[in-house]
Amino acid sequence: MRRVYFHRDFKRGIKGTYNWLVDEVKELGEALKTNNKEDLENEFADVIAWLASLANVTGVDLENAALNKYDNKCPKCRHSPCQCTF
Amino acid sequence: MRRVYFHRDFKRGIKGTYNWLVDEVKELGEALKTNNKEDLENEFADVIAWLASLANVTGVDLENAALNKYDNKCPKCRHSPCQCTF
Repeated sequence: MRRVYFHRDFKRGIKGTYNWLVDEVKELGEALKTNNKEDLENEFADVIAWLASLANVTGVDLENAALNKYDNKCPKCRHSPCQCTF
Repeated sequence: MRRVYFHRDFKRGIKGTYNWLVDEVKELGEALKTNNKEDLENEFADVIAWLASLANVTGVDLENAALNKYDNKCPKCRHSPCQCTF
């Protein structure tokens, strides 16, 4: 993702890239209503692509961030499966 | 992610899980303004965690969906780096 898009996302900047991510999340919300599997997969792919782009632009390693926080346990209750009651 | 949260997300349902995702994206937007690296990593982790939960609840394989669409090339122009002009 970095190799394909970084030059462009960097020019767009953090706020511009974040706004694209928000738009993609809205499109995912629309796709959820249609229940068309292909649309859904497309929109999930777009959201994660923009999330990865945003992480690149801000210098965050998305995979590491996720693994550090969610290391196969819920980060709040430390159980798996999660036993939080909220 | 499936093992830790599926039982809970399934009860919450698609719409409820989507709404959580939207909230986490907003929190990420707030963290972007502070420029605190630890906050940022936390919020990125939360967004991807909820995205993965939503994918589980809707029966989408998030990793496959992303790899199918973004196989190291831009899905629109088919180049890497992307050469789209929008």
